[in-house]
Amino acid sequence: MIRSQSEGEAHRRNQLPNSKKIYLSGELYPEIRVPFRQIELSPTQSRSGEEEPNAPFPVYDTSGPWGDPEQACDVEKGIDPLRRDWILSREVTEYEGRPLKPEDNGYLSQRHAQLSAKKEGGNRVPEFPGLNREPLRARSDANVTQLHYARKGIITPEMEFIAIRENLGRRQAFTPSYQRATGAPGIRAKAQTGPTHHLNHQHPGASRGANIPDHITPEFVRQEVAQGRAIIPANINHPESEPMIIGRNFRVKINANIGNSAVTSSVEEEVEKMRWATHWGADTVMDLSTGKNIHATREWIIRNSPVPIGTVPIYQALEKVSGKAEELTWEIFRDTLIEQAEQGVDYFTIHAGVRLAHVPLTAQRACGIVSRGGSIMAKWCIAHHQENFLYTHFEEICEIMKAYDISFSLGDGLRPGAIADANDEAQLAELETLGELTQIAWKHDVQVMIEGPGHVPMHLIQENMDLQLEYCGKAPFYTLGPLTTDVAPGYDHITSGIGAAMIGWYGCAMLCYVTPKEHLGLPNKEDVKEGVIAYKVAAHAADLAKGHPGAQARDNALSKARFEFRWRDQFNLSLDPETAQAYHDETLPQEGAKTAHFCSMCGPHFCSMKITEEVREFAAARGLTEQEALKQGMNEKSQEFREQGSQLYTKAD
Amino acid sequence: MIRSQSEGEAHRRNQLPNSKKIYLSGELYPEIRVPFRQIELSPTQSRSGEEEPNAPFPVYDTSGPWGDPEQACDVEKGIDPLRRDWILSREVTEYEGRPLKPEDNGYLSQRHAQLSAKKEGGNRVPEFPGLNREPLRARSDANVTQLHYARKGIITPEMEFIAIRENLGRRQAFTPSYQRATGAPGIRAKAQTGPTHHLNHQHPGASRGANIPDHITPEFVRQEVAQGRAIIPANINHPESEPMIIGRNFRVKINANIGNSAVTSSVEEEVEKMRWATHWGADTVMDLSTGKNIHATREWIIRNSPVPIGTVPIYQALEKVSGKAEELTWEIFRDTLIEQAEQGVDYFTIHAGVRLAHVPLTAQRACGIVSRGGSIMAKWCIAHHQENFLYTHFEEICEIMKAYDISFSLGDGLRPGAIADANDEAQLAELETLGELTQIAWKHDVQVMIEGPGHVPMHLIQENMDLQLEYCGKAPFYTLGPLTTDVAPGYDHITSGIGAAMIGWYGCAMLCYVTPKEHLGLPNKEDVKEGVIAYKVAAHAADLAKGHPGAQARDNALSKARFEFRWRDQFNLSLDPETAQAYHDETLPQEGAKTAHFCSMCGPHFCSMKITEEVREFAAARGLTEQEALKQGMNEKSQEFREQGSQLYTKAD
Repeated sequence: MIRSQSEGEAHRRNQLPNSKKIYLSGELYPEIRVPFRQIELSPTQSRSGEEEPNAPFPVYDTSGPWGDPEQACDVEKGIDPLRRDWILSREVTEYEGRPLKPEDNGYLSQRHAQLSAKKEGGNRVPEFPGLNREPLRARSDANVTQLHYARKGIITPEMEFIAIRENLGRRQAFTPSYQRATGAPGIRAKAQTGPTHHLNHQHPGASRGANIPDHITPEFVRQEVAQGRAIIPANINHPESEPMIIGRNFRVKINANIGNSAVTSSVEEEVEKMRWATHWGADTVMDLSTGKNIHATREWIIRNSPVPIGTVPIYQALEKVSGKAEELTWEIFRDTLIEQAEQGVDYFTIHAGVRLAHVPLTAQRACGIVSRGGSIMAKWCIAHHQENFLYTHFEEICEIMKAYDISFSLGDGLRPGAIADANDEAQLAELETLGELTQIAWKHDVQVMIEGPGHVPMHLIQENMDLQLEYCGKAPFYTLGPLTTDVAPGYDHITSGIGAAMIGWYGCAMLCYVTPKEHLGLPNKEDVKEGVIAYKVAAHAADLAKGHPGAQARDNALSKARFEFRWRDQFNLSLDPETAQAYHDETLPQEGAKTAHFCSMCGPHFCSMKITEEVREFAAARGLTEQEALKQGMNEKSQEFREQGSQLYTKAD
Repeated sequence: MIRSQSEGEAHRRNQLPNSKKIYLSGELYPEIRVPFRQIELSPTQSRSGEEEPNAPFPVYDTSGPWGDPEQACDVEKGIDPLRRDWILSREVTEYEGRPLKPEDNGYLSQRHAQLSAKKEGGNRVPEFPGLNREPLRARSDANVTQLHYARKGIITPEMEFIAIRENLGRRQAFTPSYQRATGAPGIRAKAQTGPTHHLNHQHPGASRGANIPDHITPEFVRQEVAQGRAIIPANINHPESEPMIIGRNFRVKINANIGNSAVTSSVEEEVEKMRWATHWGADTVMDLSTGKNIHATREWIIRNSPVPIGTVPIYQALEKVSGKAEELTWEIFRDTLIEQAEQGVDYFTIHAGVRLAHVPLTAQRACGIVSRGGSIMAKWCIAHHQENFLYTHFEEICEIMKAYDISFSLGDGLRPGAIADANDEAQLAELETLGELTQIAWKHDVQVMIEGPGHVPMHLIQENMDLQLEYCGKAPFYTLGPLTTDVAPGYDHITSGIGAAMIGWYGCAMLCYVTPKEHLGLPNKEDVKEGVIAYKVAAHAADLAKGHPGAQARDNALSKARFEFRWRDQFNLSLDPETAQAYHDETLPQEGAKTAHFCSMCGPHFCSMKITEEVREFAAARGLTEQEALKQGMNEKSQEFREQGSQLYTKAD
């Protein structure tokens, strides 16, 4: 059912054009190998026929071993556990994990599971065959979270890995190790604001409170984690994941949701969606599966995922009580946390902020409670007329989280589901509670991020960000969109991409994607890609606006390619080279058009870019700047030029 | 070559689901008929089986007669000249127009045109057969612009038409004439900020300097036009167009660009693109055709267009000198203006701000000059070392504009074509010149809007808007995007939709769409739709953020439908009902799913929306609010509830 794939297939599917995978090593930890995708560029051709090389361009790469044709990957074995040795050197202990129970996959009993297996035939998800190790947890009284180490002043390999990874386009591009790895001189070190045709031009940006250094050091990473402003989701049982960081002083990240539901989709599809989402740039993936086979599906995903995996454990707990929210208990939930902790889930969405007293605040809303987790807990609270058990047991949850280094994603169960409900009392009351819980988690050295809305008109986005920072002690914000209008189902990757870009600029650390299918159906592969690309756009636009050092390098490189009619370089530097090329091919499919100095918009006889090029060459050929030329008076030159046949370009003698 | 279409075809293509066209009449001018599309909604079904009707929902409609199945339209005859009588009552005179010249369609001579016709066969665009009138112009010394009338205190029929049109979702929905026309009570008059489930809830918004009244009166329209803060593009030779207004105190508008180029596309495609763009909501259309047959193509488009048509006359002038910018003369340009004025072009993009002294400022740019018009004029200026003839002849251009009531769209020929070039000296120098020119145009009572960028990172958008307002005396701003990053060719409807929404909120009056094909190729029909919808999203998000009274009504109606599982109403109230339904069909194609109280995301057994509904009903059935219930202590009720079988819903007795 889960097909292995040949290396050839992997190669064909996973390699973006003209790219190769390169790895940089650390200085504190020389054994670490930080992956980048390096895009090879063609040389600039001057009109006189000379060629000037363009340095290959490295980009942040989330595709993991799947994106490296040199690595043979087998979905049944899982990918290489690159963090395993680092983790084993910590205060951890291997133990015999919790036994798998039939209800973990949605069956009432062992017998039911067997009967169902017969009935469902091929639809039953097989157990993942490739895991040959027992789970790890912290030794008793030990704390193995990145926050714990950070506060003790310890720089972990994860932190150095992240520093190198985040430095992309900044000083790292100049280190000897980069040059050795790539043979390229790299782009220049320091951003500048001089003439805009320099590849290292960088607008200063409007940081709005962000504080991003020109160069990320491992020590900077440690400090940000220690202060709770950033998290490194890294369950010790998910050694396959490549370290990454979520915090406002780093690149804005994006999350892609996948997951089967009771109605549709298979494990094969879900694993493939995970690979597909990370191929296009998802920084984390949430598995939101419901229905049967949740445990088995998750195992396949985690063992093959190079990025952190998040879940909403209450979804699975609900399946264990056959969908009856009022039958949920702390014990069932706790057991589910352990189950998922041992599998290696990196962050848990916990809806502990949906307090009993908040629920009535939603009664007069346009769309009530739209978060699944929020409505489960609301239903439980009302049924029992008791405080939310996630809230009352929060310290115990922290104890579990810290034993595995699982990060909190404190869920916004009362997020607005309609423009009308934005920033209402219910939402803000919950946010305040999340602030309280953040302090408790931090007391336990457990990492925390905070989830945010939802449906919010543009003018209320800043308030969301401000209050989150204020209430939650600057813990990283992780928002769904926000969607800036309700009127465009089918286009909610756009309605929300607008809000996502803005809140990313304002200080949000990670953006949870929304696909075009939002509100309408489950996303298929194509929708996942649309969602990921829309959110890569939003995240990058946010980095630019914040003035992230090095963010503009890609814009500059692509614009230079565009200006010089290096069509293939323009495609290859884009977020989606395949679509860019396909669109170009629609009008001008001929190979020659990929090097032609014109495009279909204006045709071969007239091109504004070409004219500019001529203007610039005209000035250069005269050996003086345009400004000087004007000062000297150009009437005679102008005449001379017309006599030469009215071609702006004349060869320098 | 241009096919007439049967009424049946028109009906099938142009009607959006469950919609009908309605018309409202004026009070000052009872003969005017202002079109709306009214969406019929199904009733709300309560669980007890009762039905509560939902009033039909009227939306702003740009589709013109093509969107009305009651009107027989024939592309060879053109649509009804609804403004003709109003115009004839003004100080206008009919005259024998400028004779058609071969070069108007890109031929060197009559003989060349005939030879080409033979060679090109079917590719030659036939003359539009349906125009049986001579052109109009103002009598000598008369001025027939809407600005002129507005300043004299005269409310034109156009102004009342616009007031009624813009009032949509506000008081107009309550007038007796609306009720007579629709039989519906309409939605409530005054926006409010109370409980968010009310259909007339409206966030106050953050106007950032906009001043939008609760009710638009014809007098308000007049004032806004008189002060230059809004324009009504309405050439007296385009009586077919339905009056519309562009100004920050009205709904944000969008423009769609179409036009054949030297490389590709036919007139049939272009007329169809115009109908298609207005079907989806384009408020104006620019015909940017280049190459041959420009005159003929434009005639077909204008005669069939219910929205104002804009052009860039320099494009056609350039064709007349075989693409050699340096051979352009004022005389050729002037003749082209007259040619297009007589055809009925409603606004002209004029790149008079590209002054000789500005050109060198672009030499050190990343992408130089990317505007076609800008680069044409730059080339001309340098070749002649003379000031831009559009600048030196600006007063004469005003004389022509006012004789036909053509509005200026002062072109931003030096707009940035790369993030690096945003807000640079070249761009801002030109903007300042546009401010000077605005004052000159206003001296002639000629209407003006100002074009804006381009490629601009988010944090520099506000500065663009602020400087435009400051330099240009609050004349309406009309921007292309802006694109907030360069890295996503193939997705520039999204990179620019982000910037468009933001600048719309900040005060931009009209957003020029960008399609996914931007930078890569000419948009086809599907791309036009993608661009229009992305920009309808941006414009609407901007209206919401500004707190436009009535803007939120559509979000509220759609969210109510969503909350009540009225799937078809949700689709039909959306910007693109077809896509919304198609996406829903992908997972749940059965007819039953369109009324089912669940969707594919969570499946039939669990739904957060359903739970909220239950929470609300639970509270209502008890005859007290949740808040009160909580105060009274609900432990015993909670137990009773569980005894009743743990169903949150219990029937009211």
